[in-house]
Amino acid sequence: MTRSLWHEGGLFARLRNACMPAWQAYVGHDFVRQLGAGTLPKQAFQHYLKQDYLFLIHYARAWALATAKATSLAEMRSANASVKAILDVEMGLHVAFCRDWGIDEKTLEATQEGEATLGYTRYVLARGLDGDLLDLVVALSPCALGYAEIGSALAAQATAENPYAAWIAMYAGDEFADVARSVADEVDRLGQTRGGDARFADLAKTFAQACRLEADFWRQGLAAA
Amino acid sequence: MTRSLWHEGGLFARLRNACMPAWQAYVGHDFVRQLGAGTLPKQAFQHYLKQDYLFLIHYARAWALATAKATSLAEMRSANASVKAILDVEMGLHVAFCRDWGIDEKTLEATQEGEATLGYTRYVLARGLDGDLLDLVVALSPCALGYAEIGSALAAQATAENPYAAWIAMYAGDEFADVARSVADEVDRLGQTRGGDARFADLAKTFAQACRLEADFWRQGLAAA
Amino acid sequence: MTRSLWHEGGLFARLRNACMPAWQAYVGHDFVRQLGAGTLPKQAFQHYLKQDYLFLIHYARAWALATAKATSLAEMRSANASVKAILDVEMGLHVAFCRDWGIDEKTLEATQEGEATLGYTRYVLARGLDGDLLDLVVALSPCALGYAEIGSALAAQATAENPYAAWIAMYAGDEFADVARSVADEVDRLGQTRGGDARFADLAKTFAQACRLEADFWRQGLAAA
Amino acid sequence: MTRSLWHEGGLFARLRNACMPAWQAYVGHDFVRQLGAGTLPKQAFQHYLKQDYLFLIHYARAWALATAKATSLAEMRSANASVKAILDVEMGLHVAFCRDWGIDEKTLEATQEGEATLGYTRYVLARGLDGDLLDLVVALSPCALGYAEIGSALAAQATAENPYAAWIAMYAGDEFADVARSVADEVDRLGQTRGGDARFADLAKTFAQACRLEADFWRQGLAAA
Repeated sequence: MTRSLWHEGGLFARLRNACMPAWQAYVGHDFVRQLGAGTLPKQAFQHYLKQDYLFLIHYARAWALATAKATSLAEMRSANASVKAILDVEMGLHVAFCRDWGIDEKTLEATQEGEATLGYTRYVLARGLDGDLLDLVVALSPCALGYAEIGSALAAQATAENPYAAWIAMYAGDEFADVARSVADEVDRLGQTRGGDARFADLAKTFAQACRLEADFWRQGLAAA
Repeated sequence: MTRSLWHEGGLFARLRNACMPAWQAYVGHDFVRQLGAGTLPKQAFQHYLKQDYLFLIHYARAWALATAKATSLAEMRSANASVKAILDVEMGLHVAFCRDWGIDEKTLEATQEGEATLGYTRYVLARGLDGDLLDLVVALSPCALGYAEIGSALAAQATAENPYAAWIAMYAGDEFADVARSVADEVDRLGQTRGGDARFADLAKTFAQACRLEADFWRQGLAAA
Repeated sequence: MTRSLWHEGGLFARLRNACMPAWQAYVGHDFVRQLGAGTLPKQAFQHYLKQDYLFLIHYARAWALATAKATSLAEMRSANASVKAILDVEMGLHVAFCRDWGIDEKTLEATQEGEATLGYTRYVLARGLDGDLLDLVVALSPCALGYAEIGSALAAQATAENPYAAWIAMYAGDEFADVARSVADEVDRLGQTRGGDARFADLAKTFAQACRLEADFWRQGLAAA
Repeated sequence: MTRSLWHEGGLFARLRNACMPAWQAYVGHDFVRQLGAGTLPKQAFQHYLKQDYLFLIHYARAWALATAKATSLAEMRSANASVKAILDVEMGLHVAFCRDWGIDEKTLEATQEGEATLGYTRYVLARGLDGDLLDLVVALSPCALGYAEIGSALAAQATAENPYAAWIAMYAGDEFADVARSVADEVDRLGQTRGGDARFADLAKTFAQACRLEADFWRQGLAAA
């Protein structure tokens, strides 16, 4: 990674620093370490994949809500880029990826939503209902940036024999890094126009909560093994 | 009025100052002046009363949305105080008041919503959808504070023969002043917790827009005469 | 209970019947049985009380959202009755009740939200965002009606020595039964005006999900013992 | 037009029939007739173009809200197709089109929102807040279908000398007809899954209101001449 995912001193970097314990518990979760070492039980990964299918649907809905809450064309296009990325690209990749792991589309569609999936996704959507665009994008940011950081970290250590090499390569890739970077940039930009400094304590609560819910999501996967 | 409706230097006072032309066009509208002079055509007033019935319903909905967007019990109670005031007290007073002016409840319920009524109310509700609690309460504040300022100003000049003396007395009264004051206080308080300084230009746009929509509402009444 | 909490054949009764396994897992949960037998560990009850404090705040927000989504004064007043009941009465009772169990208000305010509390409350709020008033009130109904059914069932068997007798009496009381009844009536009424029959399968999913989230809430309490 | 824009007997067709006076006042408005005859004052058209720029932004936001309210991937993709069409294609065409009429992008961005623009757009967004996906898509449908009907009708009579021939050709084209058709199909489909029959009277009110607001939008353009 020659270019950093976020700008030092920007609001995203400051939120990540302020919530470091929650951030580390998320990006350094046992699920992640086992995935990086190639020792994650297959059932845990499969359970995660199925729940992630449902997660992505609601994550796209939350970015659509961000598009609806935007007050300029630039903000709308930034938010809808994530909607399009998920609906038009990632969902297809995810379905294909799941097939490689023995999960067909019907199984995905019939998956019952797990408690952690429901909690995380509805928390973000409700944050979009009660807060403004900054609150919502802050709640959405740990997912994009955390996965990029995880992908990058695991790619540096993963061997070709790792059964999860393809997953790691996807989140370590330039394309995903660009998506993550644009989310961090949007957090920084909205922080300036929407009073991020004065709201920092409140935004940090949202950020830390989203990190905890990401960790719950990993735990939900591990618990299935 | 021994106590001011708002605190000098608070966010509400600064928004009012920054939007003075729009504020004056609202509180000093021809409708208001004719009402104060007792020369407002009766049809204009009756038309206004019927539209205000519909306005109050949506205004209460917007305060209910503010209650839903609140993130503390204190904020919820502050916002729901307005919902209760409207649903439990004002609507009853309004219906009784309209009866005195020859408009029965069935007529009120059958009133077709005017363009200015619809524009104003849906603007505020949509601001509650796209913004946060501060954006929404700023959009709601010109109504409460403007009516209190109008009531106070007209009461100082109105004679007992003015056919609109009862209306003036209601908005000049201590009870309404307390409601208005608590709205200004909430704008000030939210301004501090939600980055009001950094968002001032944007909030001023919302405030000025709400003032313009209040003026449109008066104009709608006058046009009926 | 001389008068039933709901009308046979009404939408609420049909949803309850259609979701009977989820309903039974909720109203007949181990937490409830131990509470009725007086054997529930004190820590479990205390943990439940603290989480219920946070639950009530968001439950009131959801009823405020219902008030905002209402399209008639009658609907608004019906929904806001629940907001007022919680903010103006129940929160005070709850704080006093918690004090009797050794939990002061500062502790309540400092309570970290549990996963089940967050999941349930945000699910309901998000249902209010994506659905209409019927979707939202259906999602809210298992709480009110289930507690009334539980209170009524446990009161019939509880002894005076039961340490939870006061809790049982509260939910077995006429006042709470009236609240629950009005929620069931509102589900029935909205079902008729908003196409409840054609939407039954979808509404039953929402109802069952809310029941499962109630059961998760009990489980969260038990897990603390 | 070899293929109809909507299916006879479908919910959209029935709403259009039930609201025929409002529909005719919209699609047969003086603005439309003068545009078809080539006699519309240039200032009226230019004013309309500038307001339509602002309209399109909020119209895209409303479709984004529809995407957020969707509960299946198919519904999300259907709604987001409109968001993408506007943000990625129509806005660019509109800006280029305005340039041909002597209105540069800076002028568009600096345009003050007219009363009819604000009223219509916020009405639709607020309908998305208080209603469900069916309420929202019904509120959005007169715009897409009405423009397609207008384009088709005017193309049949317009001469090459008509200064508005390019505008007419755009809305008479197959591409726009496909967009309109998919909106009608979505109204029909949602009508079946979300109880359209039982809610018909209420949906017709929304439909007629949206038609009236379209007519107000034309009137706003005419008034500028």
